[in-house]
Amino acid sequence: MANNTEKNAMQRLNDLILQKNSRICAGLDPTWEMIPKTLKNKFFHDEPEEERTIGEEDRKEIYKEQIFRAYCKKYIQAVKDVVPAIKINSAFFEAEALEELYWDIAYEAQKAGLFVIGDVKRADIGSTSQAYAQAFLTEDSPFDAITINPYFGTDGVMPFMKMAKENGKGVFVLVKTSNKSSCELQDLELKDGRKVYEAVADLVIDWTTKVEECDDYDFMEDYSMVGAVVGATHPKQLDDLTGRMYHNFALVPGYGAQGATADDVVVAFDFKNLGGIINSSRGIMQAYKKDCWKDKYSEETWAEAAKAEAIRATEEINQALDKYYGLL
Amino acid sequence: MANNTEKNAMQRLNDLILQKNSRICAGLDPTWEMIPKTLKNKFFHDEPEEERTIGEEDRKEIYKEQIFRAYCKKYIQAVKDVVPAIKINSAFFEAEALEELYWDIAYEAQKAGLFVIGDVKRADIGSTSQAYAQAFLTEDSPFDAITINPYFGTDGVMPFMKMAKENGKGVFVLVKTSNKSSCELQDLELKDGRKVYEAVADLVIDWTTKVEECDDYDFMEDYSMVGAVVGATHPKQLDDLTGRMYHNFALVPGYGAQGATADDVVVAFDFKNLGGIINSSRGIMQAYKKDCWKDKYSEETWAEAAKAEAIRATEEINQALDKYYGLL
Repeated sequence: MANNTEKNAMQRLNDLILQKNSRICAGLDPTWEMIPKTLKNKFFHDEPEEERTIGEEDRKEIYKEQIFRAYCKKYIQAVKDVVPAIKINSAFFEAEALEELYWDIAYEAQKAGLFVIGDVKRADIGSTSQAYAQAFLTEDSPFDAITINPYFGTDGVMPFMKMAKENGKGVFVLVKTSNKSSCELQDLELKDGRKVYEAVADLVIDWTTKVEECDDYDFMEDYSMVGAVVGATHPKQLDDLTGRMYHNFALVPGYGAQGATADDVVVAFDFKNLGGIINSSRGIMQAYKKDCWKDKYSEETWAEAAKAEAIRATEEINQALDKYYGLL
Repeated sequence: MANNTEKNAMQRLNDLILQKNSRICAGLDPTWEMIPKTLKNKFFHDEPEEERTIGEEDRKEIYKEQIFRAYCKKYIQAVKDVVPAIKINSAFFEAEALEELYWDIAYEAQKAGLFVIGDVKRADIGSTSQAYAQAFLTEDSPFDAITINPYFGTDGVMPFMKMAKENGKGVFVLVKTSNKSSCELQDLELKDGRKVYEAVADLVIDWTTKVEECDDYDFMEDYSMVGAVVGATHPKQLDDLTGRMYHNFALVPGYGAQGATADDVVVAFDFKNLGGIINSSRGIMQAYKKDCWKDKYSEETWAEAAKAEAIRATEEINQALDKYYGLL
């Protein structure tokens, strides 16, 4: 059990960021379609296509667990030395009925020394959130933190926060998401002048002081174990929100494949260049297809390309930060 | 594949309601603590307590899969003839790492002729919601409908709606939840005078016309396969919202253990007494502990008590509707 003198999850994440000098979180969102054929074929016994007697669909059913496992393990090995964190999305495992593999891969990432984010976006009424917390945030869980949804308010999030606090884990509350239609609900203007996402940020601040048992958010020291998800695709909002929630670590999706640039995301960090982590999933997983890598790498060397891209993204963010804060 | 001449999921649910003359959905939220000791003891080989050589925790690990399975199957058998639908919450299975059992139990409920609601409250950005939809809403899924969260806006919900539509399934979008703190975000007042939950209701209406490919919500016939979750613990809001979303079937939690009465929920139904279903989870599962049943039933006969309570709740709602609409 984590005691009060130990560092909390987000402080550990800041340490890992300094240690690896990387602010990139490698996202792992595996789908059957994007797993390279060369890897699949290894499990299909390298038979030439014309000699195969069963179709792709049947082969998938027979081998998919092994193939997803091999893919994910190779991905972890590719990125583990160059990034501090990995974000593993439960949806892609549930889509293939590979829930058990989701856990195996999380343990694998933990063993590899990565900060492991369970991107599960769970939330429900209190008694049910308690059950989800029990699933993901017990002391022996491989996850260092999970993402949660704020729609239910305090009783939907507090069971996660309390159990995380108790067990040295963290949570990232969705505040402003990176997708295009996030504006439809999150950007609605309230009577008091705030946007809905700003009201959620204020709730996050309120929840933070409550669970940290700190009278005043302004007087807190360092980062809370409560973090926030703030999309990079809305740079102005990212700036406002990370300025507002200065004790809440920012998990920032939307960089790379979703369109945000390194210059867009520098505002997610504090003056020590900490307190934020930039996620890239498809950008790293499918790096071998990118214009800048496709001459050097192929399907066969997808994992080397992933590592190269993780390093490139790391440097790109660090350089943008250097330009912005001049402190690196 | 469902074609346009077939009834959609919500129309099938209305048929089941008429067939069983019940508007109760039996919720299934199993926890280790609330599974009766008498049932657990059967798997503990009926040894007298003093002869047991291993502790409760170890026994739990050995037998829990069998015990949860037996409990859930017995629950389904108890309620299957008296209610049209069952709502199975994924959280309680994930809490015990029984994800596979979640599916087995859903198939079991489907075989028993129940309308099966997967209470999973999933949502993410578009490509990820697509993966969750793939998990729960394919043609051969045992679920007739699932619950989803609106926080991401259109691209977070549309993949669910489109796949559901294609495969004869349904979705229930969280609009106003039954928990106490739902007001913190959902009841915030917008600049245009609406509450956040009303804005979500308007989005649901918009999504409905889009996915149903119908020019005007007012001109739609019957119920859409898009439904809404509207808590019973806020009767005035329930009335407003079901009046507003008159083509969206209402899944209504909050009756019974959470405090709402039969008179509170009658407003969820249309003038034919259809278009809504009232969930009761703990009220039915733990009926044998209720004042009105505890003299007649015991831990040993918990399933009979569950059936009796499902019948009692059904009659209570029907009588309240009779009083309200006078049409039964």
